[in-house]
Formats: sequence, C-alpha cells, structure tokens
Amino acid sequence: MIIVLDTNTLISKNNKMITLNEGSGGKQMQKLIEKIRDKLKLKDNWRNINDDAATLKLKNINKNLVFTTDSYTVNPIFFPGGDIGKLALCGTINDLAVMGAKPAGISLALVIEEGFSEDDLMKIIFSIGEVSKKTGIPVVTGDTKVMNKGGIDKIVINTSGIGFAKNIISNSGLSASDKIIVSGSIGDHGIALLSKRFDYETELVSDCAPVIKESRAVSKYVTAMKDPTRGGIAAVLNEMAEKSNVKIILDEEKIPVKREVAAVCELLGLSFYEIACEGRIVCGVKKEYADKALKILKKFNNDSAIIGEVSKGRGVFVRTIVGMRPLEVPAGKLIPRIC
Amino acid sequence: MIIVLDTNTLISKNNKMITLNEGSGGKQMQKLIEKIRDKLKLKDNWRNINDDAATLKLKNINKNLVFTTDSYTVNPIFFPGGDIGKLALCGTINDLAVMGAKPAGISLALVIEEGFSEDDLMKIIFSIGEVSKKTGIPVVTGDTKVMNKGGIDKIVINTSGIGFAKNIISNSGLSASDKIIVSGSIGDHGIALLSKRFDYETELVSDCAPVIKESRAVSKYVTAMKDPTRGGIAAVLNEMAEKSNVKIILDEEKIPVKREVAAVCELLGLSFYEIACEGRIVCGVKKEYADKALKILKKFNNDSAIIGEVSKGRGVFVRTIVGMRPLEVPAGKLIPRIC
Repeated sequence: MIIVLDTNTLISKNNKMITLNEGSGGKQMQKLIEKIRDKLKLKDNWRNINDDAATLKLKNINKNLVFTTDSYTVNPIFFPGGDIGKLALCGTINDLAVMGAKPAGISLALVIEEGFSEDDLMKIIFSIGEVSKKTGIPVVTGDTKVMNKGGIDKIVINTSGIGFAKNIISNSGLSASDKIIVSGSIGDHGIALLSKRFDYETELVSDCAPVIKESRAVSKYVTAMKDPTRGGIAAVLNEMAEKSNVKIILDEEKIPVKREVAAVCELLGLSFYEIACEGRIVCGVKKEYADKALKILKKFNNDSAIIGEVSKGRGVFVRTIVGMRPLEVPAGKLIPRIC
Repeated sequence: MIIVLDTNTLISKNNKMITLNEGSGGKQMQKLIEKIRDKLKLKDNWRNINDDAATLKLKNINKNLVFTTDSYTVNPIFFPGGDIGKLALCGTINDLAVMGAKPAGISLALVIEEGFSEDDLMKIIFSIGEVSKKTGIPVVTGDTKVMNKGGIDKIVINTSGIGFAKNIISNSGLSASDKIIVSGSIGDHGIALLSKRFDYETELVSDCAPVIKESRAVSKYVTAMKDPTRGGIAAVLNEMAEKSNVKIILDEEKIPVKREVAAVCELLGLSFYEIACEGRIVCGVKKEYADKALKILKKFNNDSAIIGEVSKGRGVFVRTIVGMRPLEVPAGKLIPRIC
C-alpha cells in the first residue's frame, strides 16, 4: 500500500496528537507512513507514487494512465479570483497537467455542513462548471455527503482526476546547467487569500487557474515540472532538487513577485518563496531551450521568468545582493487551509 | 459537466439551506444539478455516469476504464466489524466490483481534525492496509489535510478508485423473469453501527468487506448488479427497477435478515429493507442460471438467497403473508453518517 502525504500533515511527538503547525511532524508522519508502506507494499505496476500523481503504463497502447487526488479545505471558501470549487477543479487538473498528462475525467466529492446555503453551493457548482467548460474536461462521477451542523466547517471538496500521458514528466529530471523557469508572479493565491481572511484592502486576486495550455506548450522542452501550491516554490524546488540530486541556485532579483505580495509578506513576516500559487508552473529546461520556453510562457503570462539554474550539488540557494543563502523546505507554521 | 449525487444530499425548499433529513430535498437537489448539467454538458465519451462508477471505453484495447469516488463520514469511526478506513477502501472497491471492473488502484484522501489521536489514525491506516493486502489492490496516491479543532468531526476519508472492465455490468439490465439474488443477510452494517451509536448490547458486526470475489464469480450470469449501501436494498432495487423499466416483486419470507437486525429495526421503527449493507451484492440473474448463481454465492455466504423476481411493469413490491405492498425509495429521515 502506498500513501502520499502532503507536507502539512503534522503530528506532535509529545502528545501524540495531530497538529496543524508543527513542521517536524510532517516528516514524522512521513516516517510512520513509510513503515506501514514497507510492511504492506504490494507488487504493482504503479509508478511516480511520490509525485503529484501516480502513473500506470497501459499495455498495448503506448500511454500511461495518470491518477491523482486532493481534498480542498480552503478558508474562506470565496476569495478574490475564485472559490473552493474553482480551486478544487484547477488543482486536480494541474496535478495531472504537470505530469505531462491530458486530463480525461474528474471526480467531485462534496462534504457539506447541514445548514449550508443552497445559493453558495450553486455558486461553487457553477464555478466548477465554468472550469470544466473552459478546459473541456468533464466531471464524470461524484458523491455528496451532508454532515450535521458543526460536523464540518461549511464545505470540503475532494477532486480526483485521471488523465493519459505519452511521456511522463517527473519532478526528478533536473540536471546541471538546466534553467529554472516560473510561469508568472508567485504567491498571488496565498496572499489574496490571507488578505481576504484578515480584511486587508488589496487589488490582488488569486492566480487560481488551469495550467494545461502552458504546460503542454513547453512540455517537450522541460526536464522536470511542478505546480508550486502549498509551500510555494520553496517546497517544490527543494523537492525537485532532492529527487533530481542536484543543486538549484535562484537569483532573488529575477523572481517575479507583485508589489502587494511582497508588501503583505513583509507585514506578516512571511517569505514569498513559501506562498502558494494555484495557477503557475515551475519547470527545469535544458539551457539551450530556455529562451524558447520562456518566450512561449510569456505569451500566456508576461511575468514568466527564468529565475535560476541547476548545478552539481544538493539543496536550493538564493543569490541576493548580500550573498548566497539557503532556501529551506518550509517548516514550522505553514499557513493552514490555504487550499 | 456531469455530477452524480447521492440520495441524501438534501436541500430544504423553504429556508434554502442544506439539511440532513429532508427526503424531498434529494430530488430537488438532483433537479438543480440536472439544470447545471444540461447547461454545461460536454461532449465526452464517458458512460454510466449515473451508476456507481463512470466508464470510458479505451480505444485499441478491448477494455473500459472505470472510475468512482466516495467520501466517508461514518460515525462512530470505529464500529463492530470495522472502522472508517476499512469502510472507505471496501466501499470504493465494491463500487468498481459491481460494475464488473477489476480494481487497479485506489486514492486515499484524509481530512483530519487537529488534535486527532495519532494512534487512532494509525489503526485506520492499518485497516486500510489490511484490505489492500487482502485484495491485492494498491493505494497508489493520496492527500492529507488537517483542519483546525472543530473544523471537522475527527476524520473524513475520500477514496476514489479506478479499474478495468471488459464488460460493464450496469444497473439497468434487468428483464422480466430474472431472479433477484442477495449475497447475504441485509442491514448488518447499519444496525451494527446504530447499536454502537446507541450503546445497544449486541453480537452483531458490520458486514463491511470487499465483494470482489463473489461479484466476479457470478458476473457472467448477472443481468444487473449493485451493492446495497445507503438506503439498503430498497434504494438499489428501486433504482434497478426504474433504470431497467421493470417491476420487482420480493418475497418477504425469503429475505435473509439476522434476528438482531430485525429486532433493532422493530425497536427503532426502521425498515430493514432500507438499512445499509457494506459487504453484499444484489443482482438480477436470468431465471435459468439462478440456482447456479445462488450455489456460487452460498459458497461465499450461506445466507445468500433468491429473494424475488422481475416482471413487466414498474416499481418494487413485497409479497407478505398479508398481501402485496409497495417498497418505496427511502425518503424522509435517512440515517445520517452511516457511511
């Protein structure tokens, strides 16, 4: 049995209770799961089980089946630039897209609190419908549960997705001299959400959107690709560097960050490297194709930028005006319910 | 866009709030969804979108991809004969099995309340692992979210599943003179759960189990097949009768019901026809194969029985010692959080 856990599943060592804000817990939880996993591991043909989606080679047709799942607990459920429905559908579509898959169908499972507004539910369903219509990706199966008042905070949505990919894009394909490209400004989603949560006045809207077109457009040039959601580019670049067994060096001055995002981050003492995007891709591209890939991505979003490069070594570092500093895996107080 | 909703997604017409206990609401919700669905419907190749799982014909290989999802909000999370983890994995495996599919991989998405016991989580993970090991069906991808204290009642699990089927078994294949067979005593899960919830002393345990072997063993004889979960056999037989455009007549004396189940139902004023099973199949079988199919199912569970037959007409009826009565679709107060 294989279980993939996200970084903010946290268990406190002392009280043996699951907590929101204990970074070390994530690793501890992973260790616990690893144990069970090794114990129960089955012989099966699934691959990439530690990536955004698992893949299964389909015999007789030269294709891979790609399968992913995510639950969405975002708070507030309506935020500038989207809502929990749009987020859920885009999130799962994007997990397929960054694996190089063409999404074929999405499942939609709603868990709703008794007393939840019918109008709000319909708004959410309609925004799911809009993404489905826009992308041409159907929601094909679903489930709905209603929990008693207080049993759940408003609504939680799970979307699972399947797609087909000729070639799988993993997150472990980086090699020395690759360039790192991001497809737009970072942190918009997280900061738009926090602003709404704390009633900051800002023009900022979430970047929540499907990334199918841009990911497909550059897929033949990329060596590795991820969508920087929870933990932002700090989380995904560390993951890519570790799995590819390389070092990534970012140029701070080249990171596309909106003024509002930088300002709110400074205000709240957050690092914009760690803030979630929901409509961006980060990819590695062979040096010689970097300008070509950038040009393509700029057509979708002019903020796209080459933000760094890969070299021999380990870890992720940021080159700043005052010198080089490591960019760690986000730990400790992750922002809860950002997605 | 296609959305399939279960019968207990309920919206009250008056207060425009989603409620647990309003039967009519289910139909109303369905109508609302139908509207959106028609509006957003996409041209796609998915079929059986109103069944337990959606199916997609795979070109070049003579197989169908089968895709399903379910969220589990069961309360209590530990019950006689199982827990929310076992229930989640069996439930999704069974939705694939009754469609005639061989399950290929399951996704596991956990939403956990902050402060939830690590030991309880591990118990749940282990019972998921046991089912995975027993059936040889791997959990291949997952997600974990932690919600703040009070944000969710303990734990909610979503499992989605994919499988492959040469021949799809739909729930609309019944025709006149078919026999109706159930693969064991009905209502054990629901009543075991209620007994635990209300602290009744009983030996009864949930029937929660995978039904892969029995469903495969009889698949070549069945004309239609379902697993009678929420709403019990009353719900699934009405669905099968309606979709097959036939009448089903059950013989009350032939229904396998355990004494404890009948007793608790009488005590609580419930109908055992409406109580959920989690390890049973109900199928239609051509008259001439009925005894053969029964013999096979009895090898798995000796309580298996031919409980009725199909004839021309509409609806589901029960033949009792005092005459014939209709068996309606369960409406009104469904038992909440039974699965």
